[in-house]
Amino acid sequence: MNKNIHTFLGFESPYDEADIVVFGSPYDGTTSFRPGTRFAPATMRQESYGLETYSPYLDMDIIEDAAIFDGGDLDLPFGNTERVLDMIHEYASRVVHDEKVPVMIGGEHLVSYPAVKAVFEKYPDLHIIHFDAHTDLREDYMGEKLSHATVIRRAWELVGDGRIHQFGIRSGEKVEFEWAKAHTSLTKFDCAGLEDAVESLKGKPVYVTIDLDILDPSIFPGTGTIEPGGITFKEMMSAIDTLKGLNIVGADVVELSPHYDQSGTSTAVACKVLRELLLAIAYK
Amino acid sequence: MNKNIHTFLGFESPYDEADIVVFGSPYDGTTSFRPGTRFAPATMRQESYGLETYSPYLDMDIIEDAAIFDGGDLDLPFGNTERVLDMIHEYASRVVHDEKVPVMIGGEHLVSYPAVKAVFEKYPDLHIIHFDAHTDLREDYMGEKLSHATVIRRAWELVGDGRIHQFGIRSGEKVEFEWAKAHTSLTKFDCAGLEDAVESLKGKPVYVTIDLDILDPSIFPGTGTIEPGGITFKEMMSAIDTLKGLNIVGADVVELSPHYDQSGTSTAVACKVLRELLLAIAYK
Amino acid sequence: MNKNIHTFLGFESPYDEADIVVFGSPYDGTTSFRPGTRFAPATMRQESYGLETYSPYLDMDIIEDAAIFDGGDLDLPFGNTERVLDMIHEYASRVVHDEKVPVMIGGEHLVSYPAVKAVFEKYPDLHIIHFDAHTDLREDYMGEKLSHATVIRRAWELVGDGRIHQFGIRSGEKVEFEWAKAHTSLTKFDCAGLEDAVESLKGKPVYVTIDLDILDPSIFPGTGTIEPGGITFKEMMSAIDTLKGLNIVGADVVELSPHYDQSGTSTAVACKVLRELLLAIAYK
Amino acid sequence: MNKNIHTFLGFESPYDEADIVVFGSPYDGTTSFRPGTRFAPATMRQESYGLETYSPYLDMDIIEDAAIFDGGDLDLPFGNTERVLDMIHEYASRVVHDEKVPVMIGGEHLVSYPAVKAVFEKYPDLHIIHFDAHTDLREDYMGEKLSHATVIRRAWELVGDGRIHQFGIRSGEKVEFEWAKAHTSLTKFDCAGLEDAVESLKGKPVYVTIDLDILDPSIFPGTGTIEPGGITFKEMMSAIDTLKGLNIVGADVVELSPHYDQSGTSTAVACKVLRELLLAIAYK
Amino acid sequence: MNKNIHTFLGFESPYDEADIVVFGSPYDGTTSFRPGTRFAPATMRQESYGLETYSPYLDMDIIEDAAIFDGGDLDLPFGNTERVLDMIHEYASRVVHDEKVPVMIGGEHLVSYPAVKAVFEKYPDLHIIHFDAHTDLREDYMGEKLSHATVIRRAWELVGDGRIHQFGIRSGEKVEFEWAKAHTSLTKFDCAGLEDAVESLKGKPVYVTIDLDILDPSIFPGTGTIEPGGITFKEMMSAIDTLKGLNIVGADVVELSPHYDQSGTSTAVACKVLRELLLAIAYK
Amino acid sequence: MNKNIHTFLGFESPYDEADIVVFGSPYDGTTSFRPGTRFAPATMRQESYGLETYSPYLDMDIIEDAAIFDGGDLDLPFGNTERVLDMIHEYASRVVHDEKVPVMIGGEHLVSYPAVKAVFEKYPDLHIIHFDAHTDLREDYMGEKLSHATVIRRAWELVGDGRIHQFGIRSGEKVEFEWAKAHTSLTKFDCAGLEDAVESLKGKPVYVTIDLDILDPSIFPGTGTIEPGGITFKEMMSAIDTLKGLNIVGADVVELSPHYDQSGTSTAVACKVLRELLLAIAYK
Repeated sequence: MNKNIHTFLGFESPYDEADIVVFGSPYDGTTSFRPGTRFAPATMRQESYGLETYSPYLDMDIIEDAAIFDGGDLDLPFGNTERVLDMIHEYASRVVHDEKVPVMIGGEHLVSYPAVKAVFEKYPDLHIIHFDAHTDLREDYMGEKLSHATVIRRAWELVGDGRIHQFGIRSGEKVEFEWAKAHTSLTKFDCAGLEDAVESLKGKPVYVTIDLDILDPSIFPGTGTIEPGGITFKEMMSAIDTLKGLNIVGADVVELSPHYDQSGTSTAVACKVLRELLLAIAYK
Repeated sequence: MNKNIHTFLGFESPYDEADIVVFGSPYDGTTSFRPGTRFAPATMRQESYGLETYSPYLDMDIIEDAAIFDGGDLDLPFGNTERVLDMIHEYASRVVHDEKVPVMIGGEHLVSYPAVKAVFEKYPDLHIIHFDAHTDLREDYMGEKLSHATVIRRAWELVGDGRIHQFGIRSGEKVEFEWAKAHTSLTKFDCAGLEDAVESLKGKPVYVTIDLDILDPSIFPGTGTIEPGGITFKEMMSAIDTLKGLNIVGADVVELSPHYDQSGTSTAVACKVLRELLLAIAYK
Repeated sequence: MNKNIHTFLGFESPYDEADIVVFGSPYDGTTSFRPGTRFAPATMRQESYGLETYSPYLDMDIIEDAAIFDGGDLDLPFGNTERVLDMIHEYASRVVHDEKVPVMIGGEHLVSYPAVKAVFEKYPDLHIIHFDAHTDLREDYMGEKLSHATVIRRAWELVGDGRIHQFGIRSGEKVEFEWAKAHTSLTKFDCAGLEDAVESLKGKPVYVTIDLDILDPSIFPGTGTIEPGGITFKEMMSAIDTLKGLNIVGADVVELSPHYDQSGTSTAVACKVLRELLLAIAYK
Repeated sequence: MNKNIHTFLGFESPYDEADIVVFGSPYDGTTSFRPGTRFAPATMRQESYGLETYSPYLDMDIIEDAAIFDGGDLDLPFGNTERVLDMIHEYASRVVHDEKVPVMIGGEHLVSYPAVKAVFEKYPDLHIIHFDAHTDLREDYMGEKLSHATVIRRAWELVGDGRIHQFGIRSGEKVEFEWAKAHTSLTKFDCAGLEDAVESLKGKPVYVTIDLDILDPSIFPGTGTIEPGGITFKEMMSAIDTLKGLNIVGADVVELSPHYDQSGTSTAVACKVLRELLLAIAYK
Repeated sequence: MNKNIHTFLGFESPYDEADIVVFGSPYDGTTSFRPGTRFAPATMRQESYGLETYSPYLDMDIIEDAAIFDGGDLDLPFGNTERVLDMIHEYASRVVHDEKVPVMIGGEHLVSYPAVKAVFEKYPDLHIIHFDAHTDLREDYMGEKLSHATVIRRAWELVGDGRIHQFGIRSGEKVEFEWAKAHTSLTKFDCAGLEDAVESLKGKPVYVTIDLDILDPSIFPGTGTIEPGGITFKEMMSAIDTLKGLNIVGADVVELSPHYDQSGTSTAVACKVLRELLLAIAYK
Repeated sequence: MNKNIHTFLGFESPYDEADIVVFGSPYDGTTSFRPGTRFAPATMRQESYGLETYSPYLDMDIIEDAAIFDGGDLDLPFGNTERVLDMIHEYASRVVHDEKVPVMIGGEHLVSYPAVKAVFEKYPDLHIIHFDAHTDLREDYMGEKLSHATVIRRAWELVGDGRIHQFGIRSGEKVEFEWAKAHTSLTKFDCAGLEDAVESLKGKPVYVTIDLDILDPSIFPGTGTIEPGGITFKEMMSAIDTLKGLNIVGADVVELSPHYDQSGTSTAVACKVLRELLLAIAYK
């Protein structure tokens, strides 16, 4: 008799045999409105038992067609943002070093920063595809440089102009939208132009960060800051389908705050988005 | 002064004068994820007082334009699936024998099986129109032949190849989708082709089973297994409108689990779907 | 140190400098199904701190581009409908007299009646644009003349035939739809024809009343009577965008019942609708 | 086959054979904080199916040991308090005239006034036992004479000094507590002295009104105005047990607002309080 | 890097070194009111991370002072009660055979039957201490012999008269209370007499079954059938403390239905009861 | 017309005339389990309108008998604990400097530290009365010195041995309870000995910190870490009553997390506790 094992969708690959490494970063310390994304990875793991392993979208089965290891959640402290980011960076760096693709479950969006950094240190020509309701391009937020509201600005400091491709953006300060015109490729409201972007990135290393609040709150209310006017679930599926064939070297799914949606819909959405994203990464 | 009468939408027809007989089968014993569909018929009856009797979709009024009897809920035992199915079969058979159309409120989807059987015994050339997120075509589920996940497979054992028309399917095992290719007509994701199917079934006896989880969880989160990516409410209305003129000899609306949607939206949706379905049956 | 000030979106204009006056009418005394709209204005004020002041839809910032005063909520009694309506009328009349635009947060839809009356007394050639799921055209409701279900009929008694433009209507009694054919312009289900209506109203004084239940309950479940089949949030944004350039002399946003949507989505939707509506009024 | 009958605890007595008549008055029009008591009687009827008919407290079975008729809910209008009170008075008067004991399920506490009045008109020497968290002794509330906050003051205008026995009171204005010293018997916080009061009332006609918010919100959160510091459920049971043997000629249970307690505890509490109260009335 | 391990309170003992074996039986197939106890063991495991391992009640630390293995949940089918009971019996029998104490997390109360049976087969002189709100002594429930409402009657068929000690009982049919007088020792409402019972059982093998609905719903609303009037949490702690020194050879904690208490209180209560029960078993 | 003012219980004193200054510190950055105390002060202010200003416990009216200013909430950043604590310290210091009593609404318990520090800097002979479920005496928590779990340890570093009086403690690590024996006065489970402590502190400056989770979760589930076994609301009232006559020079009420109790009970409890605490401070 063995101790109780608990992995997303029942993933069974040992670390050494895995191509993809899933792990959770349960941190929400800079969340400015409703905290609770810390509960996302454990809740997703729990609820994933209600999800089929077969995807009729991609006609793939995630247990048969991918080798994935689930390392559980990092044991992060509370109230010390810098230390948290260091721990995530360390973990992601090890995964990257071992030639595997890290796929992180947030947590708030700031956790993407150390993961992007770890991947960027290996792939200096990294591009980022960024799905989100918010620009996340502030220079600082209430005086803080490290914040969910500044994370893409911080990532830009690593990768530079022309490397960040933003989709679905519908909220931010005027100055952020202005700044984006010079430094990133920003698409308002939806994912128009994603196909062209993907085409131009074929062969290049890409990090995909999905802030789930890109989705309309009708289908994804379980998040910190609710922004009506987002994309539908079918548009999200279509966008992920478009990513097939890219060289995705790192990815994350962030900003599920499960307690704010007691129907469980948001968690089910996050699980299916993660399943499809993993299949898109595994797709050959 | 009379005892308190409590019927869906205030239906007033006595049994003998009714063309349609509504009844509830509050069973959820084989539900594999979140139980609670047992509460659906009583909750729908209660909340139906908030619903208008006039449909601007069909320009019909359900009190004026249809003669419907509401027999309340069957008093089903717990934990004995076979006995439950026998009781439903007996009730539905009596309704069919009396030349009325049984319209059942589930409960989980397995309750459709004895109702289909009762109707099939009178109409051996029966066709089934099946709206659902799931294939429900497993040979067995965890060793059990009688399960919400096998109900359409069991129905196929009655009616045979080419008689089952499935719409909206977006979840299942790979083997179920394969099996369907040979035995049913399965449309993935939406209701494309429904008009043609209806056209080809004109004049034939048809059983319509609506698993409400065909709807996207944005509009119908109150169900056992949440499957993002479903049809909108307007698509559902349009599909029901398409059914007008068919010879519908039996029908059901299943898988509302009202406790999982505390906003009441799912129950309101189920009530309106049932109202429109009843009008489509009554339509001449 | 000053006492705690609490205004929608942090509006800072003093009354004398404001062009627009926001105030709340927390009344739900004639609500026939689920009460609770009394909580809407205070909840919206509270939650508005999570909303950006910049609108990427209109490329305007509501603090920079509009001068708005928030007067808080009227202190209305309970159980005496006539007295409540008098108090609202008195407040709105003062605002209109001071050459400002009253923008009221309900409360149930009946609160629109005294506000419309106050505006009509100044602008006898007033037109009304009415967004709603319901006709609200009953002559009386269970014997009561003053009701959320009769409010547009009462408004018609003021402004007369051809002055009321209804959009999104999908529920009512058969007789209401019949009556509308002779007296109002009623569009079922959506906002088709809104552009033409707006074009024809250019230059005329217009009152805009938005019953938020025009929205589909997938995005707006927090209301008294849930009516599936409504418009999407993007359609709502588009409709408000269409209003730009009209001479809006009064407006309201009603029927948010925040307690029935614990995810907070409905309140966030109401806040964003109000922000855009205010910007459309301020637009030059 | 008969139409669906729906009564509290499955009560089966026809009106003519009943000693006690249960009915619901779903009105909450003067509720000043959180409305929703209108849902109490229908919800209690629905949930009563989870309650045993046998009471181990009184060793009685309510189906065997009492003859009770459930007349359902009155069909009350909205927004017209006086008309609502008239309808309740008319119904209660008929029950009293037919020599039966009316037992009303509220609704808010104001509904007790017309029921007390109907009973008082037959029994001019009526005493009132009043369980509540609040004094309900205001002369008016925001200018309104008819209010849940004035109901016992209105009842005092009928029965006069020394006839009202208040227990559990823990909230009110200072002036109300002062007024009570001269006109009622008021016990703060608990039911101390109830036994003596009951002893002194033996043989006299008594109306018992139970505002369920006398209970601590730990066991009864589902009410309009939450007042921590109430009695426990066991104290409530003990108090009702003390009433055995009184000549109770009318009674009510008011102020359950079921939507505010999604665990269902408050509704279960209300059902058990009503069962025990009915048994205490039937007790010989 | 190892796969994600997930155990109650972080229990780390391997099976071979453990004295106590915790496992979950997520079955609720015969629940007659509100299902959902199937979610209890996984939810308790998840939430146990918020619980200290040190008990100030017993001054013991469960990681230091006990060797406990958590085997996870049994993978039970749905809708086939007999097969479920066989699987539980098989698992419990193996644990008993290996000279360890099985401690099961339900599920509904019926799961106690096969566990008691497994323990009884090894210890024919077994006594049962039964904490519950309900008698659970029906001969059958709606015709079914195997039901949560009959489980103690079934256990009595194994162990016989004078072996079952019931505490806290406050609900049942009259006939059950009558039957108990001849066959079990039944204490109504509280745990009076528990100390004497424990004293008389010193040295004998004892199975302890805790139906958590013995607790008042003020502290434990998250269960299928809510019965106001139960014991307080402090009384529960005191009762478990009394069990110290008994030869407990099997135990269970059943009837948590976590979805019905969204505050999480019921789950926290269940976790602490289980911690203290495990410490009482480990106590020397 | 003035901008909308929003204060707890409608407090009207200007800062200069106030004896007591209420303010909110909406910070929950080190919360280790369920965050959300950031919403407490605004929610309490909102819900306080349902609370009477008169206390039947102390026979005082808080508007008549006390001069209190409500300064609203501090505008704290996210993710930088040290900066947050500095801002609270600055505000509290100013209040203390102006010879007024600061009464802070948390936020998590760590916010007490800078408030205690500000008060201690003026009153070096300060004693602390600490109501809590938890010891809060850790040297560090996951490596962090500044944490809700270390706050009383940090306070001890200021005031030293024999100055901290802890009541109601029922959770912590073994080492914390050991440490307390040498450095604080710790009472487990309840408030036994409070009267003696108060007697011994007469005339000395005292800071009172109430972590509301000292209350049993039956009455206060809306908090981060649920600890069954706490005191009742009546015990809390009695404890506060005992504080009358002390020289309270600073106080706080912390750890309400309102979103986790949708019934509103926890917020109502927090409001009443705060009202009574303010009256006890104002009592002469």
